[in-house]
Amino acid sequence: MKRHPQLKRLMPTATPPRHHVHRSKQRAAYDRSLVHAILDAGLLAHVGFSVDGQPFVIPMLYARDGDALLLHGAVASRLMRALGSGIEACASITHLDGLVIARSQFNHSANYRSVVVFGRATAIEDASAKAAALTRLVDALIPGRAAESRPADRKELAATSVLRLDIVDASAKVRSGDAEDKPEDLALPYWAGVLPLHQQAQAPIANADLDPGIAVPASIHRFSSDPRFHA
Amino acid sequence: MKRHPQLKRLMPTATPPRHHVHRSKQRAAYDRSLVHAILDAGLLAHVGFSVDGQPFVIPMLYARDGDALLLHGAVASRLMRALGSGIEACASITHLDGLVIARSQFNHSANYRSVVVFGRATAIEDASAKAAALTRLVDALIPGRAAESRPADRKELAATSVLRLDIVDASAKVRSGDAEDKPEDLALPYWAGVLPLHQQAQAPIANADLDPGIAVPASIHRFSSDPRFHA
Repeated sequence: MKRHPQLKRLMPTATPPRHHVHRSKQRAAYDRSLVHAILDAGLLAHVGFSVDGQPFVIPMLYARDGDALLLHGAVASRLMRALGSGIEACASITHLDGLVIARSQFNHSANYRSVVVFGRATAIEDASAKAAALTRLVDALIPGRAAESRPADRKELAATSVLRLDIVDASAKVRSGDAEDKPEDLALPYWAGVLPLHQQAQAPIANADLDPGIAVPASIHRFSSDPRFHA
Repeated sequence: MKRHPQLKRLMPTATPPRHHVHRSKQRAAYDRSLVHAILDAGLLAHVGFSVDGQPFVIPMLYARDGDALLLHGAVASRLMRALGSGIEACASITHLDGLVIARSQFNHSANYRSVVVFGRATAIEDASAKAAALTRLVDALIPGRAAESRPADRKELAATSVLRLDIVDASAKVRSGDAEDKPEDLALPYWAGVLPLHQQAQAPIANADLDPGIAVPASIHRFSSDPRFHA
């Protein structure tokens, strides 16, 4: 990761981009691989859409599938139905890597990697496509887990809404490295630096009702020791 | 935190609540202190709003100030201007506490604490109120830091947009504890349990240009060792 803030956009379209970051034009670039890397490092998206003029932002687990995000929820959820009806949506994925502590309050900031995705979500209706998407979602979140769990049956599939949000437009933004104070502030008697943060995995905790003869499988070990979740 | 999922709402209003979670009605409750606790445990909000029918979800540092969120950004940002003009907004704060691994794919889930806040953001225009809000934001994020940094000068204040999002309505949702499989799935030969995750702080990193005579101050030590950021 570079030292300085960067802004990258994915898949520029013929229509005007929706996420011009006018503040950072000099940092603009187009980089699908950066967008994918930030998406693949995450588990949780904040998905936004409006219903009758009221904006909603809902936290959802997600997995990237090519240039789409897979999402899921309850069929009976009014918000899932609205989101899956093909309205405009925006999903934001952010890794907060630290707080940036400057000598001036103004230059306090955060180190982060974030992607904002624009597109429309559509519900996967076909039963076998839905089953495949759900399995793909489980396996993308915890690789290898799909083979170590019971697939959804017909009733469970009917109760589950699986959405595919095709990415029409996306932008990535990254800040890393030191605080940047004005030259005249460098002599101030204040500490400056970074307070690093990261999403840490701990050892898996077995269910209280688990047969003690069942060992932690390889997929769970791999997840627990995934470098994404260790500093 | 209780073992089972809970749903709590804050400040019910006379108008119909905007965030009915029809799936979980039996878990509904009203608890401002839970909402505040979840907000106070976090640093990053995902703020959603629509401009010309296009939803945006923007990651922003925040601080709770009573029943409001303080947010800030660049005055020159088109999105900040739109958000600060008093349009409907929704802010979502989520702590992902783990992945829940069930014997059935259907019952895979996440442990989390989340709050969804509804209201309208307004820009604080008065210079001294804005300076006070910016200092409050710095001090809420890193308690004690405001006294150890240079306050914004007039030019910096003019370049900064400080928004106050008054919470009109909010809901909290919490899931914790074991995976919950159907009784007939308990005999399946699959592992079940939780993969815990949490936001971890590491030791502060001093700026490369820091005078080596300046020690890490108490505020930074306190943040680094804050139990919120240690498992």
